[in-house]
Amino acid sequence: MGKSVLVINGPNLNLLGKREPEIYGHTTLDDIERMTKDHARSLGLGLGFVQSNHEGELIDLIQNAPQDHDGLVINAAAYTHTSVALMDAIKGVGLPCVEVHLSNVFSRESFRHTSYISLAATGVICGFGPKGYCLALDALAEIL
Amino acid sequence: MGKSVLVINGPNLNLLGKREPEIYGHTTLDDIERMTKDHARSLGLGLGFVQSNHEGELIDLIQNAPQDHDGLVINAAAYTHTSVALMDAIKGVGLPCVEVHLSNVFSRESFRHTSYISLAATGVICGFGPKGYCLALDALAEIL
Amino acid sequence: MGKSVLVINGPNLNLLGKREPEIYGHTTLDDIERMTKDHARSLGLGLGFVQSNHEGELIDLIQNAPQDHDGLVINAAAYTHTSVALMDAIKGVGLPCVEVHLSNVFSRESFRHTSYISLAATGVICGFGPKGYCLALDALAEIL
Amino acid sequence: MGKSVLVINGPNLNLLGKREPEIYGHTTLDDIERMTKDHARSLGLGLGFVQSNHEGELIDLIQNAPQDHDGLVINAAAYTHTSVALMDAIKGVGLPCVEVHLSNVFSRESFRHTSYISLAATGVICGFGPKGYCLALDALAEIL
Amino acid sequence: MGKSVLVINGPNLNLLGKREPEIYGHTTLDDIERMTKDHARSLGLGLGFVQSNHEGELIDLIQNAPQDHDGLVINAAAYTHTSVALMDAIKGVGLPCVEVHLSNVFSRESFRHTSYISLAATGVICGFGPKGYCLALDALAEIL
Amino acid sequence: MGKSVLVINGPNLNLLGKREPEIYGHTTLDDIERMTKDHARSLGLGLGFVQSNHEGELIDLIQNAPQDHDGLVINAAAYTHTSVALMDAIKGVGLPCVEVHLSNVFSRESFRHTSYISLAATGVICGFGPKGYCLALDALAEIL
Amino acid sequence: MGKSVLVINGPNLNLLGKREPEIYGHTTLDDIERMTKDHARSLGLGLGFVQSNHEGELIDLIQNAPQDHDGLVINAAAYTHTSVALMDAIKGVGLPCVEVHLSNVFSRESFRHTSYISLAATGVICGFGPKGYCLALDALAEIL
Amino acid sequence: MGKSVLVINGPNLNLLGKREPEIYGHTTLDDIERMTKDHARSLGLGLGFVQSNHEGELIDLIQNAPQDHDGLVINAAAYTHTSVALMDAIKGVGLPCVEVHLSNVFSRESFRHTSYISLAATGVICGFGPKGYCLALDALAEIL
Amino acid sequence: MGKSVLVINGPNLNLLGKREPEIYGHTTLDDIERMTKDHARSLGLGLGFVQSNHEGELIDLIQNAPQDHDGLVINAAAYTHTSVALMDAIKGVGLPCVEVHLSNVFSRESFRHTSYISLAATGVICGFGPKGYCLALDALAEIL
Amino acid sequence: MGKSVLVINGPNLNLLGKREPEIYGHTTLDDIERMTKDHARSLGLGLGFVQSNHEGELIDLIQNAPQDHDGLVINAAAYTHTSVALMDAIKGVGLPCVEVHLSNVFSRESFRHTSYISLAATGVICGFGPKGYCLALDALAEIL
Amino acid sequence: MGKSVLVINGPNLNLLGKREPEIYGHTTLDDIERMTKDHARSLGLGLGFVQSNHEGELIDLIQNAPQDHDGLVINAAAYTHTSVALMDAIKGVGLPCVEVHLSNVFSRESFRHTSYISLAATGVICGFGPKGYCLALDALAEIL
Amino acid sequence: MGKSVLVINGPNLNLLGKREPEIYGHTTLDDIERMTKDHARSLGLGLGFVQSNHEGELIDLIQNAPQDHDGLVINAAAYTHTSVALMDAIKGVGLPCVEVHLSNVFSRESFRHTSYISLAATGVICGFGPKGYCLALDALAEIL
Repeated sequence: MGKSVLVINGPNLNLLGKREPEIYGHTTLDDIERMTKDHARSLGLGLGFVQSNHEGELIDLIQNAPQDHDGLVINAAAYTHTSVALMDAIKGVGLPCVEVHLSNVFSRESFRHTSYISLAATGVICGFGPKGYCLALDALAEIL
Repeated sequence: MGKSVLVINGPNLNLLGKREPEIYGHTTLDDIERMTKDHARSLGLGLGFVQSNHEGELIDLIQNAPQDHDGLVINAAAYTHTSVALMDAIKGVGLPCVEVHLSNVFSRESFRHTSYISLAATGVICGFGPKGYCLALDALAEIL
Repeated sequence: MGKSVLVINGPNLNLLGKREPEIYGHTTLDDIERMTKDHARSLGLGLGFVQSNHEGELIDLIQNAPQDHDGLVINAAAYTHTSVALMDAIKGVGLPCVEVHLSNVFSRESFRHTSYISLAATGVICGFGPKGYCLALDALAEIL
Repeated sequence: MGKSVLVINGPNLNLLGKREPEIYGHTTLDDIERMTKDHARSLGLGLGFVQSNHEGELIDLIQNAPQDHDGLVINAAAYTHTSVALMDAIKGVGLPCVEVHLSNVFSRESFRHTSYISLAATGVICGFGPKGYCLALDALAEIL
Repeated sequence: MGKSVLVINGPNLNLLGKREPEIYGHTTLDDIERMTKDHARSLGLGLGFVQSNHEGELIDLIQNAPQDHDGLVINAAAYTHTSVALMDAIKGVGLPCVEVHLSNVFSRESFRHTSYISLAATGVICGFGPKGYCLALDALAEIL
Repeated sequence: MGKSVLVINGPNLNLLGKREPEIYGHTTLDDIERMTKDHARSLGLGLGFVQSNHEGELIDLIQNAPQDHDGLVINAAAYTHTSVALMDAIKGVGLPCVEVHLSNVFSRESFRHTSYISLAATGVICGFGPKGYCLALDALAEIL
Repeated sequence: MGKSVLVINGPNLNLLGKREPEIYGHTTLDDIERMTKDHARSLGLGLGFVQSNHEGELIDLIQNAPQDHDGLVINAAAYTHTSVALMDAIKGVGLPCVEVHLSNVFSRESFRHTSYISLAATGVICGFGPKGYCLALDALAEIL
Repeated sequence: MGKSVLVINGPNLNLLGKREPEIYGHTTLDDIERMTKDHARSLGLGLGFVQSNHEGELIDLIQNAPQDHDGLVINAAAYTHTSVALMDAIKGVGLPCVEVHLSNVFSRESFRHTSYISLAATGVICGFGPKGYCLALDALAEIL
Repeated sequence: MGKSVLVINGPNLNLLGKREPEIYGHTTLDDIERMTKDHARSLGLGLGFVQSNHEGELIDLIQNAPQDHDGLVINAAAYTHTSVALMDAIKGVGLPCVEVHLSNVFSRESFRHTSYISLAATGVICGFGPKGYCLALDALAEIL
Repeated sequence: MGKSVLVINGPNLNLLGKREPEIYGHTTLDDIERMTKDHARSLGLGLGFVQSNHEGELIDLIQNAPQDHDGLVINAAAYTHTSVALMDAIKGVGLPCVEVHLSNVFSRESFRHTSYISLAATGVICGFGPKGYCLALDALAEIL
Repeated sequence: MGKSVLVINGPNLNLLGKREPEIYGHTTLDDIERMTKDHARSLGLGLGFVQSNHEGELIDLIQNAPQDHDGLVINAAAYTHTSVALMDAIKGVGLPCVEVHLSNVFSRESFRHTSYISLAATGVICGFGPKGYCLALDALAEIL
Repeated sequence: MGKSVLVINGPNLNLLGKREPEIYGHTTLDDIERMTKDHARSLGLGLGFVQSNHEGELIDLIQNAPQDHDGLVINAAAYTHTSVALMDAIKGVGLPCVEVHLSNVFSRESFRHTSYISLAATGVICGFGPKGYCLALDALAEIL
C-alpha cells in the first residue's frame, strides 16, 4: 500500500492569508493544504493536513501519526523556538521528519534563530513560502 | 455602536485571592472582573473578560477577538516570558493591545524581565495591582 | 484519614516502553503507575496518577490537587526546562512537591540543565529510572 | 491639605515637538505640562513639573521632592538605562514613584531594555505617549 | 532564452565520496554534478557547476555569475560559518540564491549553527544529502 | 557476602548542627551517621561514613573505596561546584555513585547550580535534609 | 553667510598637555583650539570650541548648537562609552556630526570599544591625535 | 608644610542618616566629616571634605585637588559603577587615591560589583561604615 | 625622493557603483582611485591602488608593500571583521596604516562592530564615503 | 580577658620577599607577622598568625578559630577566586572577618576580580601592601 | 619505503626573522626548514616543507598531502583561530596531524585561545620556538 | 653538575592503567616514571617524579623544587582547569615549566579547554600519551 505523510501546522498559521496580506500574501492555509494534497497525489503519497494552536495537541498529533503515516512535515511556527516537548515527541515516534518554514527565519529576530525542531528533524527547508511544503514532500518521498 | 475590549488573563491568575492572601491580597479574579467591567461601563466600552491556563486557548481567544472586540488587555502571567506564539497571535490580529502585570515584574526574578508580549503590545502597565486593569482600559479608550 | 499524593507526568511520558525500548527500557507508564500505587499503599498513602501532553492541563491538575491530595510528585519532562507557568502553579497551591526525572538530566543536552520546577519543588530526585517515583513517595511520606 | 506630585523629566525631553515632529509628533513638553496639570487638578492633586538635562540636577530634584510633594512621576529618558544614582535617589527619599516612557522602550534598541529606575519604582507605564503622564497620575492618586 | 543557474561548492566538497565513505557515502561531487545537471535539464534550466577551496575564488565566481546565470545554489561548506565576504558578494550581485547543505548542520558542532550565507540567501535547504541540490533547483525554478 | 557503601561528606559538613542551628537545624553529622548506619543495616548493607575538609583526601577516599565498598554516596558540599578532580576520581573508580545535598541547591546562589559531581553520578537527590542519605541508600541498594 | 561648526570636548580633555606629558604629549586643549580655528578659517568655516566635564552641560551645548552652527565635531572622551543621553541629543538636533578621538580607542581597554556617539554620528575619526580635529573639519566641510 | 587630603563624596551620600536610619544608621555625612577631620588632625593631615550629586562637579573637584591636596579619598557611591569619566579624572591628576564604600558592595546587587574607580585607585576599603574613612586616611598617611 | 602610499581594497569593493547604486551611489572604485591619486599628487605622495577578493593576495600585497611604499591605507571590507591574518600582516611589516570604511560600520549589523584591522592600525576613518580615502591620505601625510 | 584575632594566609604567601623582590618587595611573611603582632599588641588584641598552601587546612583553621579567637583576617590569595568551601567555612563559624589583599586585585587579570571570600566577609581592604594587615586589625578592633 | 611528513606553514610565517627580530628572533623560515629537514633525516623521515598566505592554497596542500606524505605538521598561524575549512580539510584527509605554534598562544590575546586546528589534530605543541617543529616530528615518528 | 627536572603529576593520575584500560590503555604511572627516567638519563638530566591528589601538596612540591631542580614538567590533570594557586606557585618559583597532557584536552568537555597552568608555563604539549613526557624533557633540555 502507498505511503502517507502527515503535515502538521503550528500556532497562528490558520491566520495565513486572512490578515496582513501585504506581508504574508493572500495564500491561506486552505490553499496550502490543497496545493500540498495535489502534490502528494502526484507523488503517490497519502496526505493528512492538520493545524493547532495548542502545543499539547500538536504533541498528541505527532504521537498518533505512526498509526496512519510514514513521515512528518512540520511547520511548528512559534513553537519551533520554545518547545522542547515537540522535539521530544518527534524523536519519540521515530518517523522521518522535515521541518518547514515559510520565511527565512534566519533573517528575522534573533530568538527565531534557535530551533528545537531542527535537533530532531532529518532536514530543514525554509524561505520558499508555500512552495516549501511541496519541496518537503519531495524530500520525504525520496527518504520513504 | 460602542467599542469593546477583551481582557485576557493567563495561567494561575484564577488562583488570585484564594491562596496566599498575605502575599497577593484578598482580591480575586472575580473582583477584578467586576471592577474592570464597572470601569469599562463608565468609559462607554463593552468588555469581555476571560482566563485560561492553556497557551493554545489564549491564542484561540486572541485570534477570535476581532469578531467582537476592538482592543485587547493582556495579562499573560508566566506565558509573558516564554510564549513567542502569543506574541505572534497579537501581531497577527492587529488589534491595539495593552500589556498588564499586577506586580512590578522588573523587581522579581531575572527570567521575568523578558517579555515577548511587549514586542507586540502598544504599551505596558505594571506594578499597580488590580488598578492596572482600569488604567489599561483608560489607555485603550484613548487609542480606540 | 490518610494522606494522599498526586503523581503528575508531563509530555511524551505516555510513550515510555512503547518506543525505543533499547534506550528507555520496556517499563511502560502503566507499569510505573502500578509500581507506584503498590508502594504508596505500603506507606499508607492514597495515590492519584495522571499524565498529559498539555501544559495547560498540567496546570489545571496542579491547581485542583489540593481538593484531594496533600502532596505532589512531578515529572514534568520537557516542560521542566521551559515552563514558568508550571512553577507558578506549584508555588500557588503550596503543596509539598518532589521533582522526579527518570534519567540524570545533568548529563544530557545543556538546555536540560535548567529546571523551573526545581525553583518551586521541595527537593529533586533524578537518575534512578522508575525507582525514582518510589523514592519520591518515601520523601513525601516523611514530609507529610 | 491636598497631596502633591512632582513630575520629573530627563535629558532631551525639552526637545519634544520642536524637532523631528514626523517622528515624535507636535506635542511639546509645555503641552504635556499643561495637560498633566489639568489632569492633576481634576484629581485634586497639586503638581510640580520640571525638566533637566543634568543627572546631578535630577538627583537634587528628587532629594528635595519630599519637602513639597507626596509622590513622583519620572520619565528619566536616556538616564533610565545608565543611572544607578537616580535609582539610589528614588530609593533614598522613599516616595511612591511611577516610571513613565512615551514610547514602548521594549521595542527599541536593546540597550533601552534595561531600566535602573524600574528597580526603585512602584510601577511602570510606557508606550502611550503624553497620555502616559495622566495615567501615572491616576495610579499615584490611588496609591497616595 | 532559457534561465541558467550556477551551483557553487565550497572548500573540501571535492573530497566527497573519495574519503571516509562510511561517513559521507560513496557519492562524489562528480556524481552530484551529473545528477544536478540532469535535473536542471528536466526543468529547462541551464546549469554551471563549480567548486573551489579558495574563498576569494568563490567571491569571484559569485561576482561573475550575473553574466551567464539567473540564480545561485551555494553550498559554502566551512565558509558558511566564517565568511562575511561571501555574504556581501551574494548581496552585491542580487541574484536569487538558495543555500544548500548535505547534512543537517543544526545537529552538528555549535560553531556550525551560525550561517552568514543565510543572511543573504532567499532560502535554506539542509539535511537531504545530494538530493538537496535538486530541491534547490526546484525552488529556484519557481522563483526565476 | 553483603554489599557495602561508602558515604563521603565534604567540607564544612562537620559543622552541621553545631553552629547556626536556627538555619541548619540541630541534627549533627554524627546523628546523620547513626541514622544512615541504622538504615543501611535494615537494607543489609555495610556502611562506611567519612568526612573531610580536604579535596585531596576526598579523592584518596574515593580512589580507595573499591577495596571495601560497592557503591558511593557523596555530599561534596562546596566542592560540588568547583572540583573537576572529584568528578574524575568518581569516573575513575567506576562505582555507582549517588549525589546527595541536604538543601535544594537549585534555589540558592547561582554558583551552586553547577555540579561537576552530577556529571559522574548515577543520580541526584537533594532538598530532603538528612533523610536524603537514606533515600540515597535505597537507590543504591536497588542498583547494587 | 558662511557655515559654522561647533567643536565639543568632553570630560578631562581640559587636562591635556598639563599632566602626564610623557603619555599625552605637550599639546594643550588651547593649542588644539588654536590649530582647529586656523584650519576652520582656511576652510571658510566659523568655529565654536567648548569643553565641559558635565554631561548635562554637553547636552545643553548640543541642543543649542543649531542656533549658531551647522555641524558638530564631538570628542566625548569618557562619556563616549557611557552616555545614551549624548547620543539622543545628537540625534535630536539632527546636525551632521563627526566623532573624534585622539587615540585609537580600539586598542585600549575593552570598555572603550563601545561608543554610543557612533550610533548617532555621521562618521568617526580616531587615532591621529590633535590632527584628527582638522580631518573632522575637512569631512564636515565636504558634508555641509 | 603638612600634607592635605581631599575626601570626595558622591551622589545621595548627603541623605545619610536623614532617611531610612533603620537601614543606614543615624550617622549623617556631617558626623562623618567631623569624625574624619578629627582623625586627620591626629595624623597631622589637612582635610577637605566635599559632596556632590553631579558627576561633572566631582570631576572638577578631582581636577582641582592637586592645587591644595596631596591625596584623595573617594566614595563615589553610584557613580562608582558607571563613571569612566571619574576614573579618567583620577588617573589624570595622578594623586594617590583610596576608594571607600560604607557597605560591602560585593554582597549587594551584581551591578555594584563593577568599579571603574578601582581601576584608578591605589587601594580599596569597603564594608566598615564611617570607620572606613579613617582607615583610608591611615592608608593615605602611610603612602604620602 | 617622495613618499608613497599603497591603498589596499578588500573583497567586493570592485562592485562599487556597478550594482545597487540606489544604496551605494554611482561612484565606482575606478572613480575613487582617480580621486585618491589626484589627492595624493596634491600632497606630493606617490600612490599605489589595488583591490582583491582574496585574503591571501591581500596579505601578499601588504607583505610586499615596504619595497615600494611608506604607508598603507586599508579598506578591508568584510575581511575587517574576520581576518586575524591581515592584522598580523600589518603588524608584521610595521608600516603606518590607516583603516578606512565608506560607511559608518558601527551603525550596521553587530558582527561589523569588531575590527581586527583596528588592532594593528594607527587610526580609523569611517562613514565619509569616498572622501574618507583622501582624509586617510591627509592623516598619513602628517605621519610620514 | 582581651580579644584575639587569627590572621590566615593562603597559598604561596610564604614565598613573599624570597622571590622576585623587584615585583613583590623584600618584605617577607615573617616581617608581616612581626609587624602585625606589634600592631595587635598596641590595640590590646591577641594575635594568631598562620599560613598554608592547603585549602583543606585553611578550612580546618577557620573552623577551629572560635576556640581561641574572636575575629578573622584572611588573605586567601589564589583561593579567593576559586574556593566556595572557604566562604562556607567563614559563614559557618560566624566570626567577623576582614578580607585583605596586598595588591589591588581589581587592576590585575579578570579572573582575580571575583572573590568568594567577599561574600562572607564583613569588609575588604586591598592595595596597601603589608600595611593592609594593620588596617584590617584596626577595623576588627572597632567591630569586636 | 620510508615515511614522509609534510610541514605546512600558514600566513605571515614567511616574514619570520626578516622583520622585528627583537621580538621574533633572527631565525628565518628557511632556517627552520633546514633544521627540520636535518631532524627528519635523523629520524629516517622524508620531509616536505611549504608556506602560503592563502587559506585556499593551504587547503589544497592538505588535500594533496596523502599522495606523497604520511603525516602532517601544521603551524596555521592566524588561520588557527578563524578557519573551520582547514579543520575540515585535516579531518577529510585523515592523516595524523600535529599542531605547532612558535609562541605560547594561551598567553597572548584572547582571540588566539581558540583553535579550530586543535579539534582535528592528534596533539598540540606550542611555546618552544623553532624547536617545536622538531618535537612535532618526534611525536609523529612515534605515531607513524 | 648536571641539570635536574621535577615531573609533577596531579590528581587521579595514580589510577592510570589500573582502571578502564580500554580507555586509558595499560600504561601505569610507574611505567611512565620508568620511561621518563630512562629518557632523562639519555639527555644527561636528573629526574624527580612525584604524584599527589592534593592541590596543597602540589603547591608545596613546586615551591620546594628550586632546591633540587632546574625545571618543571607538570601534568596537573583536573587542577589544570581550576587552580589559580598552582599557576601562582609556578610563577612564584620562576623555573621553566612545560605543561603536559596525555590526551588532546581541546577535543574533550568545554571546561577542559581553560588552563591556568598555560598562563604560567613556557609551553604546552598535549595529545601524545606517555610519549608527551619525553617530548617535554626534550623541550626543557633545550631551554635549560
